[in-house]
Amino acid sequence: MSEESNAPSAAILIIGNEVLSGRVQDANVNFIAKKLVAHGIRLREVRVVPDIEKEIVDAVNALRSRFSYVFSTGGIGPTHDDITAQSMATAFGVPLIVHPEAKKRLEAYYGDQITPARLLMARTPEGAVLIDNPSTIAPGFRFENVFVMAGVPSIMQAMFDSFIDGLAGGPAILSRTVLCKIPESLIAEELGELAQNFSDVDIGSYPSFRVGNIGLALVVRGVDEKRLDEATKALAKLVQTHGGDPKIE
Amino acid sequence: MSEESNAPSAAILIIGNEVLSGRVQDANVNFIAKKLVAHGIRLREVRVVPDIEKEIVDAVNALRSRFSYVFSTGGIGPTHDDITAQSMATAFGVPLIVHPEAKKRLEAYYGDQITPARLLMARTPEGAVLIDNPSTIAPGFRFENVFVMAGVPSIMQAMFDSFIDGLAGGPAILSRTVLCKIPESLIAEELGELAQNFSDVDIGSYPSFRVGNIGLALVVRGVDEKRLDEATKALAKLVQTHGGDPKIE
Repeated sequence: MSEESNAPSAAILIIGNEVLSGRVQDANVNFIAKKLVAHGIRLREVRVVPDIEKEIVDAVNALRSRFSYVFSTGGIGPTHDDITAQSMATAFGVPLIVHPEAKKRLEAYYGDQITPARLLMARTPEGAVLIDNPSTIAPGFRFENVFVMAGVPSIMQAMFDSFIDGLAGGPAILSRTVLCKIPESLIAEELGELAQNFSDVDIGSYPSFRVGNIGLALVVRGVDEKRLDEATKALAKLVQTHGGDPKIE
Repeated sequence: MSEESNAPSAAILIIGNEVLSGRVQDANVNFIAKKLVAHGIRLREVRVVPDIEKEIVDAVNALRSRFSYVFSTGGIGPTHDDITAQSMATAFGVPLIVHPEAKKRLEAYYGDQITPARLLMARTPEGAVLIDNPSTIAPGFRFENVFVMAGVPSIMQAMFDSFIDGLAGGPAILSRTVLCKIPESLIAEELGELAQNFSDVDIGSYPSFRVGNIGLALVVRGVDEKRLDEATKALAKLVQTHGGDPKIE
């Protein structure tokens, strides 16, 4: 990556048997990834692990020491397979407690229908700060640089939006895309030279194939708008040289 | 997981700046996950890493030592950002060579339009076995328990289908789903007891929320059809006890 390396970095940890079993296709990574780009935070790794405490503990400890922020999704509900809060407490080496404010919110929401199972959703590692859940009340939580959210996309999104503006970011990562219909192998050598001349931006080459139609997206990413525009122009010219009809997006 | 632990396991390694940047939503994990379920192979972890050699090397070495199979996607094309073959050779501690059969295939396909860039797609770690690419010729490769495939979904799928039937699997993992519209917190305690009584199958609880509509999917997974049916019936009865109208899928 040619972007400045002191920009904040992030990892996503998906706690999800349902993703590993193929029952659902994860949608949370793409939502978070796009928001991080706009906020100038570099998403550097994603892991999906099963609902097994040791796997969650090992993954979150590996990620929180390497990256500025870790965003986890899944496993914070009231049922037997929701082991995220307990696993995070183990990972952080602190007790799992009933968070007084979370308990208050759940009691206010459920009234006389509060049950021990519903109160399980008030558990956090000791020292955690709540993340609001405007949708179904049961909160997520932040502990140091780890943000623990629900797995249901609509709830995760509401939680994420509630804190992202408060996080330190870097300059937004801008991108330009040059679309054409020529095979990438035709321009690969010249593209490599061009990428070297523009080593201060990232240039990616992404082919697609649909029923006999070749598509190619050349994507320029970086923080300097002027250099981005120069690289984009150079790419469009390279495509034209090879008889392609570049479209800039 | 209550499934037998000696069944073959697997991890997926997505090499993809385009997923981390949010440009595309990965579709390869869900395709592979579903196929592995049918084949009796347990998908235990997914990682997405950037197009950086050290990240790829560290991830593939961590995964190939822990799981029966590792399936990687992305980064095997002809352009400057395609560093998977080189990174895999580094991870395996063997030289990167031009694979004679791959070279032959590419020369036959491109004829007099063969170029040095196109021949880059013939590189594999020494000792690798080719994975056929019926779509665009440039092959993937297998090295020990690591399967290296293209990132473009249609090509990845063709590659995967070319070898999956030849891999040792276990008993297929079957599943039943009980759908209803009651909040999971209402049945959480009884569900936990039920899950303990059926500790030989996995029971997951997955809520959904769409514009005021609560949905709940109770998913039973395991290899013993009889126990699956018994657990499914018990779940349906539990839902009915709480005034829900269970639908079994």
